[in-house]
Amino acid sequence: MTLKMAVLPTSNLYLDNALESAGAAVVSLDDAQALIWTGSDQTGFPHELPKNIEWVQLKSAGIRPWITSGRIDSYRKWTSAVGAYSDDVAEHAVALLLGSLRQLPLHARASTWLKADTWDTVRSLRGRKVAIVGAGSIGRAMIPLLNSHGARVIAVNRSGHDVEGAETTAASGDLEEVLTAADDAVLSGASTDETHHLIGATQLAALGSDPLDGAPGVLVNIARGDLVDTDALTHALQSGTISGAGLDVFDPEPLPSGHPLWTMDNVLITPHIANPKQRMLKNFADFVVKNLCLFEAGRKLKAEIDLNRSY
Amino acid sequence: MTLKMAVLPTSNLYLDNALESAGAAVVSLDDAQALIWTGSDQTGFPHELPKNIEWVQLKSAGIRPWITSGRIDSYRKWTSAVGAYSDDVAEHAVALLLGSLRQLPLHARASTWLKADTWDTVRSLRGRKVAIVGAGSIGRAMIPLLNSHGARVIAVNRSGHDVEGAETTAASGDLEEVLTAADDAVLSGASTDETHHLIGATQLAALGSDPLDGAPGVLVNIARGDLVDTDALTHALQSGTISGAGLDVFDPEPLPSGHPLWTMDNVLITPHIANPKQRMLKNFADFVVKNLCLFEAGRKLKAEIDLNRSY
Repeated sequence: MTLKMAVLPTSNLYLDNALESAGAAVVSLDDAQALIWTGSDQTGFPHELPKNIEWVQLKSAGIRPWITSGRIDSYRKWTSAVGAYSDDVAEHAVALLLGSLRQLPLHARASTWLKADTWDTVRSLRGRKVAIVGAGSIGRAMIPLLNSHGARVIAVNRSGHDVEGAETTAASGDLEEVLTAADDAVLSGASTDETHHLIGATQLAALGSDPLDGAPGVLVNIARGDLVDTDALTHALQSGTISGAGLDVFDPEPLPSGHPLWTMDNVLITPHIANPKQRMLKNFADFVVKNLCLFEAGRKLKAEIDLNRSY
Repeated sequence: MTLKMAVLPTSNLYLDNALESAGAAVVSLDDAQALIWTGSDQTGFPHELPKNIEWVQLKSAGIRPWITSGRIDSYRKWTSAVGAYSDDVAEHAVALLLGSLRQLPLHARASTWLKADTWDTVRSLRGRKVAIVGAGSIGRAMIPLLNSHGARVIAVNRSGHDVEGAETTAASGDLEEVLTAADDAVLSGASTDETHHLIGATQLAALGSDPLDGAPGVLVNIARGDLVDTDALTHALQSGTISGAGLDVFDPEPLPSGHPLWTMDNVLITPHIANPKQRMLKNFADFVVKNLCLFEAGRKLKAEIDLNRSY
């Protein structure tokens, strides 16, 4: 049996090759059993899907806008791509954390030998305690990386149920105590009404201090900009309430030219590239093939969207 | 029994506390059984050691200058600190490699949103093949880190004997083939007559290309500057023969102000801070205590210097 897939609005070489290898045929929407939607949002999505479409695979890991728009029906299966990109984003989080501890923004801007200034203040990740705020797919992918780097992990999730690999797990209601106990924090939670401005002046002041020299910790955000009160963050970085930040996401995003964060030596900025494009295309193609095999086998798909509990 | 130790030329809080915890007494050179030399070189080292000194613990991991000066005698045990700092230096190597792949120098210097330029060119460490040139203590400490990041390792050592955790191990005579097979290379070998300018134009041209987009690889040097021909490296970075470099050591060192490497967006420079000072002091103190326990127990010490094969 050859599975018939529609790919909209556009395809790419990774996806074409992956579908061909898997023995799937790319056909029009009216002839397909499944739709692979490669758009990053809902722009151009078909107003009405034909009845023959039994399954829709979305490209995004976060599908909150799809839920709120009411686009997702219960007539067929819908899958997100949650988990497909987690390893790459987790790697970027570690790169930002290491980069902040090793003072890479200051060093990258230098044009003279700063050793006398920075040898004493550069820090190592080893032995530090890192809070992972939002231990979903990306947060969990960070844990083995941090452990291999000799850091200990406090995971934070809604329930407080144990997360594998974390030294301790706490419920999100205990966030402030966690930040006090931790040296550094990585934000990897979803953007919801409850997580809007989750990190403000109080939380930044709570973030713990260095095990060796008592210097305050580092905040990394690879989740969504609106988890953080940007003004409070800017102030905390200017006043030394926290020692540094590694930021891939912003509120507002893009971060406007002229914003003070751009030129601060304790801020490492990347422009929402934690999930690099070429890797994203390849990882999505691999993910689709896995789900395609499960679909053909009549098994439960990866990342099926449950309208009753999705966020 | 209380072990009597001399600490010269200076001590520090980490060492004082560690020796006190271990129950050792700090005494003068003439009364001591062992000397802990905390100097980073031989400046001020006693011209003649009294006979009562049975063991000398040096602070350096690389002890080549001590060998060539003829300072090390066979009357007593001498230990280096090789291994004491390896984890921290290995971490810095990973930070530089990730930082180069994630284009942190370019991003750190930006004051506008570069996503349209860099989302397509940023790379992930996952799936890459990394050559570790010089699989000594630091090189071996990198292997579990790279493996946890989803990279594969080709280790290079003198003998080509298998290194644990590496996918393959090659002898240093096969360096060029290794560089061709690898995507990126990290230099972690000792500075010797044979490794002087080990990496020149030919080796840089051999360094492999990206598994996804064919872009050339990244060179990281956390070993010694003179392993690399700096002019050849500068040219390779300017011409795109390699795509980036993460450098903590230089030849000449310090890297002179005005050198073209300072301002290149594909070069991530740190000023020989891979082994951060506070961590170094703590790690040395921990290392001394371990050796002190072994000495008291009459057992073989860690990092004993063998004049017949040391480098």
